[in-house]
Amino acid sequence: MKYSFRNDYSELCHPEIFEALIAAQKEQNSGYGLDKHSENAKKLIQEKLETNNCDIHFVTGGTQANATVISYILRPYEAVLSCESGHINVHETGAIEATGHKVYTVPGQDGKLYPIDIINALKTHTDEHMVKIGMVYISQSTEVGTVYSVSELKALYDCCKENNLYLYIDGARLSSGLAASDVEFHMLKDLCDVMYIGGTKIGLMSGEAIVIFNDQFKPYFRHHIKNKTAMLAKGFAIGIQFERAFQDNLYFEMGKHENELAHFLSNELKTLGVPLLSESPTNQIFPIFSKDQVEELKELYDFEIWGEVEDKIAIRFVTSWATTKEACIELIQDIEKIISK
Amino acid sequence: MKYSFRNDYSELCHPEIFEALIAAQKEQNSGYGLDKHSENAKKLIQEKLETNNCDIHFVTGGTQANATVISYILRPYEAVLSCESGHINVHETGAIEATGHKVYTVPGQDGKLYPIDIINALKTHTDEHMVKIGMVYISQSTEVGTVYSVSELKALYDCCKENNLYLYIDGARLSSGLAASDVEFHMLKDLCDVMYIGGTKIGLMSGEAIVIFNDQFKPYFRHHIKNKTAMLAKGFAIGIQFERAFQDNLYFEMGKHENELAHFLSNELKTLGVPLLSESPTNQIFPIFSKDQVEELKELYDFEIWGEVEDKIAIRFVTSWATTKEACIELIQDIEKIISK
Amino acid sequence: MKYSFRNDYSELCHPEIFEALIAAQKEQNSGYGLDKHSENAKKLIQEKLETNNCDIHFVTGGTQANATVISYILRPYEAVLSCESGHINVHETGAIEATGHKVYTVPGQDGKLYPIDIINALKTHTDEHMVKIGMVYISQSTEVGTVYSVSELKALYDCCKENNLYLYIDGARLSSGLAASDVEFHMLKDLCDVMYIGGTKIGLMSGEAIVIFNDQFKPYFRHHIKNKTAMLAKGFAIGIQFERAFQDNLYFEMGKHENELAHFLSNELKTLGVPLLSESPTNQIFPIFSKDQVEELKELYDFEIWGEVEDKIAIRFVTSWATTKEACIELIQDIEKIISK
Amino acid sequence: MKYSFRNDYSELCHPEIFEALIAAQKEQNSGYGLDKHSENAKKLIQEKLETNNCDIHFVTGGTQANATVISYILRPYEAVLSCESGHINVHETGAIEATGHKVYTVPGQDGKLYPIDIINALKTHTDEHMVKIGMVYISQSTEVGTVYSVSELKALYDCCKENNLYLYIDGARLSSGLAASDVEFHMLKDLCDVMYIGGTKIGLMSGEAIVIFNDQFKPYFRHHIKNKTAMLAKGFAIGIQFERAFQDNLYFEMGKHENELAHFLSNELKTLGVPLLSESPTNQIFPIFSKDQVEELKELYDFEIWGEVEDKIAIRFVTSWATTKEACIELIQDIEKIISK
Repeated sequence: MKYSFRNDYSELCHPEIFEALIAAQKEQNSGYGLDKHSENAKKLIQEKLETNNCDIHFVTGGTQANATVISYILRPYEAVLSCESGHINVHETGAIEATGHKVYTVPGQDGKLYPIDIINALKTHTDEHMVKIGMVYISQSTEVGTVYSVSELKALYDCCKENNLYLYIDGARLSSGLAASDVEFHMLKDLCDVMYIGGTKIGLMSGEAIVIFNDQFKPYFRHHIKNKTAMLAKGFAIGIQFERAFQDNLYFEMGKHENELAHFLSNELKTLGVPLLSESPTNQIFPIFSKDQVEELKELYDFEIWGEVEDKIAIRFVTSWATTKEACIELIQDIEKIISK
Repeated sequence: MKYSFRNDYSELCHPEIFEALIAAQKEQNSGYGLDKHSENAKKLIQEKLETNNCDIHFVTGGTQANATVISYILRPYEAVLSCESGHINVHETGAIEATGHKVYTVPGQDGKLYPIDIINALKTHTDEHMVKIGMVYISQSTEVGTVYSVSELKALYDCCKENNLYLYIDGARLSSGLAASDVEFHMLKDLCDVMYIGGTKIGLMSGEAIVIFNDQFKPYFRHHIKNKTAMLAKGFAIGIQFERAFQDNLYFEMGKHENELAHFLSNELKTLGVPLLSESPTNQIFPIFSKDQVEELKELYDFEIWGEVEDKIAIRFVTSWATTKEACIELIQDIEKIISK
Repeated sequence: MKYSFRNDYSELCHPEIFEALIAAQKEQNSGYGLDKHSENAKKLIQEKLETNNCDIHFVTGGTQANATVISYILRPYEAVLSCESGHINVHETGAIEATGHKVYTVPGQDGKLYPIDIINALKTHTDEHMVKIGMVYISQSTEVGTVYSVSELKALYDCCKENNLYLYIDGARLSSGLAASDVEFHMLKDLCDVMYIGGTKIGLMSGEAIVIFNDQFKPYFRHHIKNKTAMLAKGFAIGIQFERAFQDNLYFEMGKHENELAHFLSNELKTLGVPLLSESPTNQIFPIFSKDQVEELKELYDFEIWGEVEDKIAIRFVTSWATTKEACIELIQDIEKIISK
Repeated sequence: MKYSFRNDYSELCHPEIFEALIAAQKEQNSGYGLDKHSENAKKLIQEKLETNNCDIHFVTGGTQANATVISYILRPYEAVLSCESGHINVHETGAIEATGHKVYTVPGQDGKLYPIDIINALKTHTDEHMVKIGMVYISQSTEVGTVYSVSELKALYDCCKENNLYLYIDGARLSSGLAASDVEFHMLKDLCDVMYIGGTKIGLMSGEAIVIFNDQFKPYFRHHIKNKTAMLAKGFAIGIQFERAFQDNLYFEMGKHENELAHFLSNELKTLGVPLLSESPTNQIFPIFSKDQVEELKELYDFEIWGEVEDKIAIRFVTSWATTKEACIELIQDIEKIISK
């Protein structure tokens, strides 16, 4: 196999992040994230957010971040509102429900929620025989590669505040999402109550940074992290990585890099006449091939089968911080050969 | 207000059931359902089921029965499959999710699930990143008043067995459901793994009888009932009521009675030209009126607003064991006056 | 068997409460506790509490009340502090833990907690690797028949408030507890955050009244009741009973009655030279007999074996609202015969 | 500060394990632990266990491993039996209870459970009003540094099997525990149902290996890991580390190293006349100093305050794979100076 375009977490971590780990190898650090690297990483993130009025906690994975945050925010009888395509609804094996909460879903559009979705959900949840909608979950970028604009996020958050709901942003692919939208990192502090900054899918060995803007959700959050089995003894291993990612613009550059390669791929595919399932501005693209073409492509590359489109098949290519232009050029050349047969 | 057609649980209990309670008033009975009445009630139910190879437990309410059974059957990573209109999905305030399990829903048809729904659900749950569908939940009669036939139930249960799923029947309105379908009570032992026989909605002061046919779900079920806070100290209060309901055919006659009155109402409404939202063979009917007509009707009767149908309104009339023919005749006469204005 | 002294929930309900149910038999009432009887019952309880600044909700059982209240008050990472002998620790089959919370226990003394127990518990729970103690659970009367005095309750509640803890009183046997202590019913509003008034163990067919004094725990409590499967469709069945129990002093008289008979029994037993395991001022007494005597007594009466005391056996007699003086006299006469052999 | 003896997880990871990570830096690997390194790591562990009849899964932390395993094994109404000093009871912030299960504790002895503890626990859990004890949790080495011998483990496991209980071993410090006892690694397959091999506390950056011997607990375990938020996208990051640790005897040598240094410390302390709180054969030792001495020592070294012993203080020194003989010699020299003042 020449290369895997299956996902953006196939390689251990970005070389510069690896260097930071190597540099700290002989240090003794305090446990449980109470070390100098974690502290510094938090400060660096706060600087880029242009506020120090937020609490930051590091955990190891996205599902873990979601379950930890959602179960902290909600009261027992409350549900989280999500798009049907939301990661918490589809791909977390019931992890949110395992903490006792319903994930109430609406179809949304292109993987995104709009204020009207929130309003309709509230209209149909009118009494104590139905769950109370307590918060709204969205992803930036979404599970289908789309992004929210600043005005869309603002409209959603305003709608949440008017209705006493809390807005939580799953930033598993935040770097790519920022690079593809008009949302700047520092704006996020005014656009949600809690979010997490994804690390695993953008060049960290593992690690996500939960950022809590709303004061209401700060007390005893470390107790809650431990209660949800998400506290790492060697928390500094994540702190070191985030420290490096936010020391300069590395965190943001990685997202730009993967988007650029994805755009290159989608442009070349269009030139070749390969249809795309959707216009994705981020690092996931969804070309459509015949079954035979997919079979041939499979022998050379690894990727995900997304679904059937009439008698053809949509597949997913994901570019990552580690993907090279060369790999992309070769992929296009191979596709050209296959489709010209 | 003349009369309430809002639901089938507006009156305390059937006079003969009340008599049975009065007769036992001075008795001393063992606690927690280990009394002679509960024992006898179980035997009487088993006789009518034509098997003694089932365990029977009494609890106080339907949501409680559902949460207790479902959380016993499922493994932590498993979900229950339900129609979107299923009571566990809509009207239990997240009680199933509170036990840790996702309610995975499909639209179904007329409140009913079909084997194709199960197969499609399984097809889309293919790996460990998605919940495992562990069981199927249906209601007889359904939340919209429809019923399953024997052949439909058999097809569902066969499909479940072929796919290692368990079938659970919510019988909150089982009496009415049996009276409206070709399903006979004794057949149920071969048509599901677990069910509950609804009491609260058919003439008991409170109480539902969980019936476990599948041996796999029998051990330590009493521990589980207590763990789910559903064990009643004075369990005999429910045992006495079920004993009376199954001593003769009272349980089944109450369902017949309410269906007959509902049929009378729907026939008369059709004669008057009042459209019905659906053809319900059971004790819930859904006539459609103009908004003004609903307002007038509201001053005389109590009932539930079901939803808007274009510029009109569908309402729900529920007949119960306590509803009289006289009340129904009067209702029709009042409707005739209102719509002829 | 002549009579059961096994517990105080062997009979259906007090005749006057039964009369109230009979009187309401033909009424149509709103469901889910939103009926006129439940409303009136709440008003009557509030009058006797001398405050209308409390929310009251009816549920069917004590374990259910405990799990519902505790899971509402606590945050996910918090634990409830209880005496080792506490009902929630010993006899609820893990129902509290099933809602996600640790029951942290200390030995206490004679079934009671003291401020020092709270302070010691807090001292040993110092960081995020240990549960945060969030509330304190006590019972009045306790599981071993003892009672708290006003000054003891006040000291406990003051200690709770000083330490940001909430105090919850399990009143399964509140009537008996009040009759045996200097605590008057109306004082309770200033002595805890939440309590429940036990009905099942004092002459109701079933039913407990959760009383919420602390405003913080009032919002959406009905949602939570439904979520915890504790909402009864025919809530009025419990409302009617509490309405009757608090219409005059019936609720309090039943407790006095059972305490008087228990005192009669313990005095007579002392006169006969039968040792008692403890001095219980309430309706549970714990005489000690030889094994042979217990065997003989078993043939005539039903009671609980409490435990071994050296080579003898402590048993438990419980008197109830239904126990008669005649039954007690006969019991004493039979004991006299047995021990004089 | 010269050196930290606070715990055995202050350094990132063993240099040879770091080398293995560096060697894999440019590889593309499959996600979620389905990669070649994880597969090979499992084979190497199986070889050393002398069986391939076990399933192995990698997760990131000890509390996570415990909560994942225990919530898989237990039925909802079941509890896990633990020593009072057990990690799951004291230091996991209610993480086990958060999955719905009671941790039932007994005092045990020196941090260890014996068959008599199990038998007594079963004797007092006799009916459905109490949790059913479903499994037994022990740690090797224990939280106070002691170890089980082969015969002790065998007696415990036999007792479990006779009583239909499952035995689970928390191996957070398994390497040190094996080095200090007559238990050989391969014997463990016959001494428990499930265990985890600790990595975080013995030279891995993070990672624990859950080993399932009992076939009953194998199906769908990956679903359960995801449901409990413990599945790592870059599972290969842990696989690579365990692969290296079990490629030769590195895993076992690290434990030997830390035990040797701990023995050196305890011997030297005895020579100096410093009393020890207990005889620990593993890498945790508990010397007792005066308060002044502790204050002086604190300025030079980091360590944990364990508790008061009369007017003195017991502290804890932990040696790790990274601790050097030089650091230990210096510590002893500094102690000598301090106590000779």
